[in-house]
Amino acid sequence: MAPEMDQFYRSTMAIYKSIMEQFNPALENLVYLGNNYLRAFHALSEAAEVYFSAIQKIGEQALQSSTSQILGEILVQMSDTQRHLNSDLEVVVQTFHGDLLQHMEKNTKLDMQFIKDSCQHYEIEYRHRAANLEKCMSELWRMERKRDKNAREMKESVNRLHAQMQAFVSESKRAAELEEKRRYRFLAEKHLLLSNTFLQFLGRVSGAGESKPRPPESVVRRKGCSFLPLCFLYG
Amino acid sequence: MAPEMDQFYRSTMAIYKSIMEQFNPALENLVYLGNNYLRAFHALSEAAEVYFSAIQKIGEQALQSSTSQILGEILVQMSDTQRHLNSDLEVVVQTFHGDLLQHMEKNTKLDMQFIKDSCQHYEIEYRHRAANLEKCMSELWRMERKRDKNAREMKESVNRLHAQMQAFVSESKRAAELEEKRRYRFLAEKHLLLSNTFLQFLGRVSGAGESKPRPPESVVRRKGCSFLPLCFLYG
Repeated sequence: MAPEMDQFYRSTMAIYKSIMEQFNPALENLVYLGNNYLRAFHALSEAAEVYFSAIQKIGEQALQSSTSQILGEILVQMSDTQRHLNSDLEVVVQTFHGDLLQHMEKNTKLDMQFIKDSCQHYEIEYRHRAANLEKCMSELWRMERKRDKNAREMKESVNRLHAQMQAFVSESKRAAELEEKRRYRFLAEKHLLLSNTFLQFLGRVSGAGESKPRPPESVVRRKGCSFLPLCFLYG
Repeated sequence: MAPEMDQFYRSTMAIYKSIMEQFNPALENLVYLGNNYLRAFHALSEAAEVYFSAIQKIGEQALQSSTSQILGEILVQMSDTQRHLNSDLEVVVQTFHGDLLQHMEKNTKLDMQFIKDSCQHYEIEYRHRAANLEKCMSELWRMERKRDKNAREMKESVNRLHAQMQAFVSESKRAAELEEKRRYRFLAEKHLLLSNTFLQFLGRVSGAGESKPRPPESVVRRKGCSFLPLCFLYG
């Protein structure tokens, strides 16, 4: 086979191999790591919930005291704010789970067979066409040696097969490249979507933190008792 | 003892009891829950690090491909952004650990003994003063019955002790109230500090997300291959 066709063939096979042996296992691993990430997030979310429930209870005790109702209000409000933040963050996590992890998981499973089939199909088709071309070329060589009157017809046939082969290897390479690019683009786009959802969450939370009447430190100083650096503990 | 003094005494003791039996155990529990929260955060941080390292590796593979260098750059940049975010978040966590949890832990340990001592000291002092006053009052009653010439002097002494007792119970109640308020204020102020540190982090991150040349979705569409809804997986 002509060296440039062989080159095309090897490049195309290398792309399929890279999807099968690098990209898909990496994506499979990413799904596993992503599920660990999700579990860790849920554990954190639960720890935060328990911590701020405890803060709320202390706040409610303060509300019942004769001295610290306003401090109690602040503590209860802090606990509420944290709950809202947690439920807002859930949206990001749902995006991560539903739009990213589940999609990646489904894709890798289906893609392993799909890419294996595409690769095998290409390999068979290439070998079939190459064998056919080789056969016609040696037939032509035999005919030319024998000065066969059909040699001219056979030469045309060989030229046609050669042109078809060239078109086939070049189109197949483009198709494989498209498959490769599509997979990396899928990964990048899905993560950009996640990243945008996270930025929207951050914008909402930090915007709410700036505008909403959250308890400023001055309230504690103004409405709480005056701040005296006394006693050995609570200055 | 006069009912209003008894009332002061019971209120003051109730405040000490509330600090000893409610506030301090609640703070101790909060330290425990806070340490769980920290552990969960570190686990999440580690899971994120591992996940985005895997993304980086895939990005580096894409950089070496003939088709997806720009997508590779985006994936690597995403991984970098996540690392910066994680190390920024570490500042919040250090505040939580150093300025809040460690402080709370030290305080509850020392405070248990301090408040117990203050309460006992008050109780002894109150009983001592009350007994002394009672003794003088019955002495006065005895003297008045006997029309003792020193009764007038004793009456003055009883009045003085009574006034001192009144000042003592009222000052002691104010002191106990101050202790209570100081403890709730400590908790509220420490959490406001944490909340402000967190808001600063959110402001920094969402600000950076808006201004910094992070990879916009349009780059993927413009520089990646055109978006064709084909094949059964990666549309």
